[in-house]
Amino acid sequence: MAGRLSNIIEMIKPLDEGAMAKARARQDMLTKPRGSLGRLEGLSVKIAGITGKAMPRIEQKAIVTMAGDHGVIAEGVSAYPQEVTAQMVYNFLTGGAGINVLARHIGARVVVVDMGVAANLEPHPWLVSKKIAFGTRNMAKEPAMSRQQALLAIEGGIEVINEEVAKGLDIVGVGDMGIGNTTASSAICAAITGEPVAKVTGRGTGINEEELASKVKVIETALALNKPDPKDAIDVLSKVGGFEIGGIAGVILGAAAQRIPVVIDGFIAGAAALIATRLCSKVKDYLIAAHVSAEIGHRAMLDYLGLKPLLDLEMRLGEGTGAALAISIIEAAAKTLAEMATFADAGVSEKLD
Amino acid sequence: MAGRLSNIIEMIKPLDEGAMAKARARQDMLTKPRGSLGRLEGLSVKIAGITGKAMPRIEQKAIVTMAGDHGVIAEGVSAYPQEVTAQMVYNFLTGGAGINVLARHIGARVVVVDMGVAANLEPHPWLVSKKIAFGTRNMAKEPAMSRQQALLAIEGGIEVINEEVAKGLDIVGVGDMGIGNTTASSAICAAITGEPVAKVTGRGTGINEEELASKVKVIETALALNKPDPKDAIDVLSKVGGFEIGGIAGVILGAAAQRIPVVIDGFIAGAAALIATRLCSKVKDYLIAAHVSAEIGHRAMLDYLGLKPLLDLEMRLGEGTGAALAISIIEAAAKTLAEMATFADAGVSEKLD
Repeated sequence: MAGRLSNIIEMIKPLDEGAMAKARARQDMLTKPRGSLGRLEGLSVKIAGITGKAMPRIEQKAIVTMAGDHGVIAEGVSAYPQEVTAQMVYNFLTGGAGINVLARHIGARVVVVDMGVAANLEPHPWLVSKKIAFGTRNMAKEPAMSRQQALLAIEGGIEVINEEVAKGLDIVGVGDMGIGNTTASSAICAAITGEPVAKVTGRGTGINEEELASKVKVIETALALNKPDPKDAIDVLSKVGGFEIGGIAGVILGAAAQRIPVVIDGFIAGAAALIATRLCSKVKDYLIAAHVSAEIGHRAMLDYLGLKPLLDLEMRLGEGTGAALAISIIEAAAKTLAEMATFADAGVSEKLD
Repeated sequence: MAGRLSNIIEMIKPLDEGAMAKARARQDMLTKPRGSLGRLEGLSVKIAGITGKAMPRIEQKAIVTMAGDHGVIAEGVSAYPQEVTAQMVYNFLTGGAGINVLARHIGARVVVVDMGVAANLEPHPWLVSKKIAFGTRNMAKEPAMSRQQALLAIEGGIEVINEEVAKGLDIVGVGDMGIGNTTASSAICAAITGEPVAKVTGRGTGINEEELASKVKVIETALALNKPDPKDAIDVLSKVGGFEIGGIAGVILGAAAQRIPVVIDGFIAGAAALIATRLCSKVKDYLIAAHVSAEIGHRAMLDYLGLKPLLDLEMRLGEGTGAALAISIIEAAAKTLAEMATFADAGVSEKLD
């Protein structure tokens, strides 16, 4: 493994048990029946453990939306043409996409990253370029990328998160854009979890029954041809992954190394989380699953990661849209811990014995 | 039925189908695969139908938190002493309670209403008084209140919402505070839905197994003694209800009459929704269920109301805390409808045929 990646992985430490114990003790002193804020209480304790702060605040928020194209669309796996990836990047930059609206709603900045869009994108002050290539190769015919490109994609993601941390960052959500990327994500999911391809392959942007059957066969072909080694995450990423998936895995690893909570959006970000946690299992503690996507297979992915999603709103847009909504709830959880009065502060009687 | 209440009920009209059709058509033109925003899309359409606006905005938000005491706590049904109701009202007024934190988080005002707290509360500029009495009577021994008091409680709620609408209001969440009010709510739920008491009675603020068995018996006794008529919502409210529950039912009816979406918090607000929808079934269209409470029985209540909760965060605090989190998601849904670019605006290619 490349030296830079090894260094980052070595930086990832267990959660701060002391901060968690303090947060838990404070939750129990707040003016409410113990446990009555449900998952908000556990979230506030988890954020304390991740950040190492007994009373963490979530103020500076970013959604990192990574874009890349996929050679496998030559096999007819998507309902939309490849040009949509680049068109949507411009839509992100002009503020008209779903993620722009939801990020504004929660007060988060959107960091748009070209990891490997199959077009020469015009420079834009808000566009970060870490382009590895003009889309992956067709995994149904050959490996999607070289091992070196897979490492570069992950390292690109680490660079992106480091730049964001330098600007000030309390939480990051990770999302994706890439026509064809549910195909790559299903392949990663099947390769790593061992689930049958048909069980983890869905309709993506909206293909029909026949196209779905064909998509399953394309993924089975790609796995049979490339034989990714489930124990070697870089091998899986290079053979059946995508540049934006590698980039997101890098953001996850880099954020965990810097004790920043990472909110995983949907199916594609989930595939990146599988790669990241295979590289370093401690990463799991730094992840919060935003929601369960309507994309079939996401539930299996979350089960494998041991994550319980916060929301179930039948969303399947990607871009980080689910992560944005979840971040607002996590911020709310941290605020209850920091801002609610204790029984003593408020002169409220405690539970009867 | 009192004339004022009849007038309000007559004002409640069906949803605006024209506004809904326009909102649905616009959702399908936005830059995302159709349906990929899941429940956000349906929410935006519902808000259009409620408000009669094809592109509704959720800007002015209020949480109405209504407080009342319950004579039935003499039977030992709660883990907390009665004085906590008044203490928590003061906590709401000084901004230290869970609902204050979550309302601030979503930019909503909190309207604290004394519907029947068993204490002389000190006047406060933010405290609205619609006090009917110093707590209800013990429903295990006699009706909780008179029929006249039940009507006054509902009318008090209508006055509260009318005052809020006059200030400017796009959405309202309803919540409660009242030691003993899960007991009243379980009784209402059993009376109206016909479910067995044991199936809809939970641990409230945190009683033990033995206390729970006793709470079930107290409710069974109250129902057997008072024989509330399930077809007569005012009879149910007066015999086994609470002042804050009547007040919340009034807010719900008054909001529906003025085409304001109402976000139902948890189990107690749900009991109020049962009363309101029994008085006028069209009210259901104006309701959004914020979350499914950890309080057993809430699921049965939501099924009866035909509402699918937005969130499941294992919360059971009441006060309107679940409603606050849900309002933020509803606001986000309305923003996607209003602010996202269309395929034509953004020059994004549509789905392949």
